[in-house]
Amino acid sequence: MKIKEWGEEGFIQHLAKLFPSAHQTVGIGDDCAVIPKDDKIAYLVTTDALVEGIHYFREQIPPSELGYKSIAVNVSDIAAMGGTPQYAFLSIALSKEIDKNWLLEFVQGIKEACLSWGIHLLGGDTVGSKRDLFINITLIGTASHSNIKYRHRALSGDIIFVTGNLGDSGGGLRCLQTGVNHPELIKAHFHPIPHVNEGLWLASKQEVHAMMDLSDGLNCDLTRIIKASGCGAIVELSKLPLSPALKQFCQDSERLALTGGEDYCLLATVAAEAADEIKKEFKEKFGRELHQIGKIISGPESIQYLRNGEPCTLILSNFDHFEDIKNGPETT
Amino acid sequence: MKIKEWGEEGFIQHLAKLFPSAHQTVGIGDDCAVIPKDDKIAYLVTTDALVEGIHYFREQIPPSELGYKSIAVNVSDIAAMGGTPQYAFLSIALSKEIDKNWLLEFVQGIKEACLSWGIHLLGGDTVGSKRDLFINITLIGTASHSNIKYRHRALSGDIIFVTGNLGDSGGGLRCLQTGVNHPELIKAHFHPIPHVNEGLWLASKQEVHAMMDLSDGLNCDLTRIIKASGCGAIVELSKLPLSPALKQFCQDSERLALTGGEDYCLLATVAAEAADEIKKEFKEKFGRELHQIGKIISGPESIQYLRNGEPCTLILSNFDHFEDIKNGPETT
Repeated sequence: MKIKEWGEEGFIQHLAKLFPSAHQTVGIGDDCAVIPKDDKIAYLVTTDALVEGIHYFREQIPPSELGYKSIAVNVSDIAAMGGTPQYAFLSIALSKEIDKNWLLEFVQGIKEACLSWGIHLLGGDTVGSKRDLFINITLIGTASHSNIKYRHRALSGDIIFVTGNLGDSGGGLRCLQTGVNHPELIKAHFHPIPHVNEGLWLASKQEVHAMMDLSDGLNCDLTRIIKASGCGAIVELSKLPLSPALKQFCQDSERLALTGGEDYCLLATVAAEAADEIKKEFKEKFGRELHQIGKIISGPESIQYLRNGEPCTLILSNFDHFEDIKNGPETT
Repeated sequence: MKIKEWGEEGFIQHLAKLFPSAHQTVGIGDDCAVIPKDDKIAYLVTTDALVEGIHYFREQIPPSELGYKSIAVNVSDIAAMGGTPQYAFLSIALSKEIDKNWLLEFVQGIKEACLSWGIHLLGGDTVGSKRDLFINITLIGTASHSNIKYRHRALSGDIIFVTGNLGDSGGGLRCLQTGVNHPELIKAHFHPIPHVNEGLWLASKQEVHAMMDLSDGLNCDLTRIIKASGCGAIVELSKLPLSPALKQFCQDSERLALTGGEDYCLLATVAAEAADEIKKEFKEKFGRELHQIGKIISGPESIQYLRNGEPCTLILSNFDHFEDIKNGPETT
């Protein structure tokens, strides 16, 4: 059997069974692993690979943006669990034909991203590659034990929020695929801004039950929360936050919002009785909306989509890395 | 300029300048980075990438050995600084055409390596790859602050030791390259046994000044110690520990010992007055020799080779990952 038939989720489930977490740690299944530091603080650890021809095409993305994005996607995982990024490690496999200036700009992008979030690059590995460029970043962050948020804590009745617009990055990718120059959407794809402060603030609220970042599209990522939590969800499509640029650019903006991926904003479920207050405080603090898009319900582990209150059936296909697809789930 | 002209060491020096270490940490330049845990213990972090067609050929290495080796080479970095391996993270980029059984055997090899050293795999990232297989392991270990060994602490007068035979892995690689079936040498190449207990024991001795693991060959790795420490070295070629298998297999066993790489034993410098006692205790504890091969001297940062006490000139070329070469230095 080829792995494209087995599928990526099958492989990750196999890994999770084979490698149970250790004492005092949290392992496979969240945005980050959690390892002990001291009584108050834990380390969060995440790792993300970016592969040429899969995650990006070298002729499309400026090297500084690729460096920036390599760090940013990992920062988003730390933000997703309520942490502060601290230490990065870069592994890079380079073909010997790569230009020195390309590499200098790439590491400059890494440097700028590190400066943005106060991250220290402490090491890595530099190796050759026959053809494709491989990048792997491991990022370590810190969080208060009491504030760390997980995927499996959503409760029936919780309100579902997202912290930013959905689908812009997917729209940017489509621009690149179709040769359309739409700077705003392409920027959303190349230069995501992870919601670190939003994550820290939401993590400080006990009423926020489950949280993760949106890397593989709302449909895929919300499914992960409900499967981990053993509940279902209702999502109201008319409430999905879509940018004017995305709506103007494409007719299927809703589909991009659900499956486009790489939004790198946060998805959180909040106790219903606290939802209005948290929404209000969020707006005061960050000057923009916390978008309420649905709620967690008891019942089967699936998402029920409504359009203006009426049930509707969508046929959506999520990413699977083993099926020619662009992006994919992390095991941390 | 292509990076093959710039060279890997040039790139790593650029990174080290661009990214100074943070407070309470040690960054680029040793086998591991050091980050704080508590008053007694620090975390050591290392990361190593293994790329198809560069570090191995998939048709040659059994998948379980590739899994094992991916962990073992990182364990060796933790051992090199006197640590105990604890938590691993696996990033893997897979072509969709890879067979499920291949992948199952690969993770079984990872599992066996993790069991050998009590390591918990806590996460990673699973992504697609257009063609080549790319593996990255990040390994976190623990060490007592007071015991951690670095490369830059060698002192003039120190005796240089290695903890195992040199060149067998290079011999195994040559077997693979030339189609010779020599199980003992090929095993040394596929299944290195990092010296964790030896590292812990040596690290507990104050008289052990500098330590690292031998991943890129004695000539390259000892050069790193003397450059970091600002001193020179003398190595007596007749003292290089060469296995009977290697000597029998090839006439240039000495060259393989100096430049073959991937030995994954330890290189340490020890205060001269304590050297005999440490050598004796090592033999009592581990039942084999600690091999004395030379000494650290003041003077220019280069290695002077002697053959039976007479100076001799060797023309050796070290690895550079950007020059078609198999293996290479890590920045942690």
